[in-house]
Amino acid sequence: MSAQSIGKLVIIGVGLIGGSFALALRRAGLVKHVTGVGRGRENLEAAKNLGIVDDWTNDAAEAVRDADLVLLAVPMGAYENVLGAIDASLPSGAIVTDAGSTKQHALSMAKKFLSDPQYFVPAHPLAGTERSGADAAFAELFDEKQCIITPDKATDAAAVARVKALWEAAGATVLAMPAAEHDDFLAAVSHLPHLAAFALVNAVRKEAERNREPDPFRFAAGGFRDFTRIASSSPEMWRDIALANREAMIVKLDALQQELAHVRRMLDAGDGESLLNEFADAKASRDAWLEKHGGAK
Amino acid sequence: MSAQSIGKLVIIGVGLIGGSFALALRRAGLVKHVTGVGRGRENLEAAKNLGIVDDWTNDAAEAVRDADLVLLAVPMGAYENVLGAIDASLPSGAIVTDAGSTKQHALSMAKKFLSDPQYFVPAHPLAGTERSGADAAFAELFDEKQCIITPDKATDAAAVARVKALWEAAGATVLAMPAAEHDDFLAAVSHLPHLAAFALVNAVRKEAERNREPDPFRFAAGGFRDFTRIASSSPEMWRDIALANREAMIVKLDALQQELAHVRRMLDAGDGESLLNEFADAKASRDAWLEKHGGAK
Repeated sequence: MSAQSIGKLVIIGVGLIGGSFALALRRAGLVKHVTGVGRGRENLEAAKNLGIVDDWTNDAAEAVRDADLVLLAVPMGAYENVLGAIDASLPSGAIVTDAGSTKQHALSMAKKFLSDPQYFVPAHPLAGTERSGADAAFAELFDEKQCIITPDKATDAAAVARVKALWEAAGATVLAMPAAEHDDFLAAVSHLPHLAAFALVNAVRKEAERNREPDPFRFAAGGFRDFTRIASSSPEMWRDIALANREAMIVKLDALQQELAHVRRMLDAGDGESLLNEFADAKASRDAWLEKHGGAK
Repeated sequence: MSAQSIGKLVIIGVGLIGGSFALALRRAGLVKHVTGVGRGRENLEAAKNLGIVDDWTNDAAEAVRDADLVLLAVPMGAYENVLGAIDASLPSGAIVTDAGSTKQHALSMAKKFLSDPQYFVPAHPLAGTERSGADAAFAELFDEKQCIITPDKATDAAAVARVKALWEAAGATVLAMPAAEHDDFLAAVSHLPHLAAFALVNAVRKEAERNREPDPFRFAAGGFRDFTRIASSSPEMWRDIALANREAMIVKLDALQQELAHVRRMLDAGDGESLLNEFADAKASRDAWLEKHGGAK
């Protein structure tokens, strides 16, 4: 279906994702008025000056009073407070969607804190950069990206269709799946690489602290830069994701540790043939991924 | 010192590194004649057509007969064969340098297979892309990169000075250190990320094999792409590096496993404060590295 225009859009958390969603819907001509909600005056003023929001407030409950659609684009750890704050003033039938990285947690928070959780449509756009804040937002962020939505049986079908159409209008390809499946997939291909990048940087950091001269970081080159780019991501955001999806992440972490233990045994045995097979299998998978999905970003 | 011109340069292994070294020295006007040595006719013909080499041969022993300087740019696993093949025909005083990723192994191979190992100056330019072959070579590859040389007490001082000047003329900043120190540093900031990237891709691959629909790789996005770029590197090259530097790599792998186990304990305990500190420490280190060294690539 083509997307229905929104009279008033409320963006709670006007950062990279929230700001880009507003800009993308403006680009599509689908939104009349955008109100931004947040805590930092400076970021909200920037969002207004950049044309992302028409006005802003620190008061989420007040902002949503006449909202048609609310996007929750705050860290997972803030869902409880924000949903608790807006529930009483949400108009009947107003749709709430989000952009959080773990969907079982989002659904359970909605069920706990919203009186009408059937109008909450969990969404996760697979897009982002390590930059944050309103001034990092741009209308094209979701173009050719995937957005996974994870409604359950209780979710209102019309609300699902509307949210799907809006993310599509924002540029994304939308795919629906159960929240648990989403969380399991993302634990493998997103959350685990982040944990591993943080851990690897810390392993090198501890070495640097033990043995300061010359600094081992000095010899880190392009491979290190790309491998650890995601270790420059927001620690607060990743703490929240780790806590919200910790069961799936522990399973993936165990799988990675098993692989590393397997590599260690091959190294210890000096088994070049097995190392070659291990590396060749990884390269083949990664090259196939790049060929099939990498171009679509 | 400024670099002394080379009458005849022999590049054994005309790939990304070997080809770029020849092009960089041509750019500096420091080489009269370049002979390429390799096994594949197609790659060597390409190198000739691209102006990287003036002529080529499959016969390394023949090629070095009147060489002034020889660059060994083959996988570590081929050092034994190549050094063994060229020793008898190397002119007296001809300098041999290399570009391999592990330097204790390079030194020990030179001592084992060369009659005059004092003219072997081990070098490792910290530069590369995941591409390979002569057609990936370019004259600017080493510009603003570091090149580590690891002569020992027995290495001829004039040969060291000459090799240093040539890598500088090729664009690099040259730094000397003991081979063991080099291998230890590189195990942390280069070899370990490669092992971890291969292992992570394999962990996801095995999940994909167990549970085919939908393919989890489908949801991999930009973070995954950058994190695993190095898993598209040459399996043969990394097998050789892993075997040549396995002792240092096992130590680093153990340090990474300890970090991952530490993260797992925090996840298991739901300890958000410790996770935040862990991630924040990594981000601070990585951002500081990027600030201090990342710009120099």
